[in-house]
Amino acid sequence: MSRRSDGGRVVLVGAGPGDPELITVKGLGWLRRAEVVVHDRLVAPSLLDEAPAAALRIDAGKSRGRHCLPQSAISPLLVRHAAAGRLVVRLKGGDPFVFGRGGEEVLACRAARIPVEVVPGISSAVAAPAAAGIPVTHRGLASSFTVVTGHEDPSKSGTDVDWEGLAGGKGTLVVLMGLGSLATIAARLVAAGRPPSTPAGVISRATVAAQVVVTGTLADIAERARHLPSPATIVIGEVVRLAGNDPVRAAVAARWADYAGAE
Amino acid sequence: MSRRSDGGRVVLVGAGPGDPELITVKGLGWLRRAEVVVHDRLVAPSLLDEAPAAALRIDAGKSRGRHCLPQSAISPLLVRHAAAGRLVVRLKGGDPFVFGRGGEEVLACRAARIPVEVVPGISSAVAAPAAAGIPVTHRGLASSFTVVTGHEDPSKSGTDVDWEGLAGGKGTLVVLMGLGSLATIAARLVAAGRPPSTPAGVISRATVAAQVVVTGTLADIAERARHLPSPATIVIGEVVRLAGNDPVRAAVAARWADYAGAE
Repeated sequence: MSRRSDGGRVVLVGAGPGDPELITVKGLGWLRRAEVVVHDRLVAPSLLDEAPAAALRIDAGKSRGRHCLPQSAISPLLVRHAAAGRLVVRLKGGDPFVFGRGGEEVLACRAARIPVEVVPGISSAVAAPAAAGIPVTHRGLASSFTVVTGHEDPSKSGTDVDWEGLAGGKGTLVVLMGLGSLATIAARLVAAGRPPSTPAGVISRATVAAQVVVTGTLADIAERARHLPSPATIVIGEVVRLAGNDPVRAAVAARWADYAGAE
Repeated sequence: MSRRSDGGRVVLVGAGPGDPELITVKGLGWLRRAEVVVHDRLVAPSLLDEAPAAALRIDAGKSRGRHCLPQSAISPLLVRHAAAGRLVVRLKGGDPFVFGRGGEEVLACRAARIPVEVVPGISSAVAAPAAAGIPVTHRGLASSFTVVTGHEDPSKSGTDVDWEGLAGGKGTLVVLMGLGSLATIAARLVAAGRPPSTPAGVISRATVAAQVVVTGTLADIAERARHLPSPATIVIGEVVRLAGNDPVRAAVAARWADYAGAE
């Protein structure tokens, strides 16, 4: 594939949930032609090696309480490099439009009349449970799933997330970035009517060799997951019963070792 | 990467939303080593060409009212070929665990003690809105999203989907396989309290050259989307206002032409 005029544009690329092989073929193609890569902290280092050696790499990585670049600085950065004629790849963990603030970056590009494209990525919302053998939907167990972020403090008033409404649903509930708030989230859901016996699971560092899965119920999951490192995905609902200690995890680990060894 | 014992296993691979370049690097790697490929109707033909020429290809494609293989026949088929020592790739549109019945196939493999792995795919639930410039989450507009299937008749009693509960939420609502039921779905949501002025959009044949996007409101979306072909993704909520007729679609079409030309 050749492209005559790749430069002067911004491409938001979802890097996926952790395993560098879970980027899309299209996303990898853009990354390999990038002149500027603006990446998140959660992006696998080996993925960054896929960009041309001469590409400018900018770490915009944000973690809780440790901001590298504020969001207000990222969009102008993308626009500035693209306006100078460069192909800018904005490499984001997961999917750019699932709590990735990709929408804000797209709007900034549009406002500056910079061509912008979005290449979706595998979101941890589905892939992290899958890596633990848990399907977010399953006939007879869950016919819908809802994805929220636990990043904001769920105990503060004026939170955007309708925890009470979520408690009433029968579908699977997936909480991203909620590990630090897990005790509060579980308590709010129980207070709002979800049975304390509702199965719940936490997948820490999904899809990479360090992956750890802990399962329990709304009553005990916060205690059980207490020592897990982030990033972590929380999944709540009957589908958690399907979690399997089967070859999936072993295969993930083996694959990662293969990949790392090939670098 | 070499694998010593690929055979005798089942790998569920998500093929993504339509554009063949939206498969993951890992999924494509498995496909290129497959000895048996059991695929859905919605999988791009050019993806099937990626499997070895000698691979056995089985079309398990299901469309509404036109079943090729019943689900009850698919799992035994996977198990049988894997038990004979073959590497079986089950190639499914979107993600295997998002209304893909992948969970049932995993359970069947586990019961038969066949090693099984899941490689997630890009779900249309997020990628179809994205291809229309619509982020499913956006600061100030939507801090959660819920994914349901409209495949079952939403007017029948005993439906698994809690349309009334969904109507009350403030988050984005994404309906897969709901085009045929769109009028009923919109009416139920309005009857349950969602304002008729709620923005709604339909993305038909997302991420391929034939993609068409129609936007409107809950009051008129069914009429506006009347002539669209399936598959289609419905997205409901304030984020639909961000839909953009920007370079995204043009770029998608150009990419597809490149890809098709390279075959």
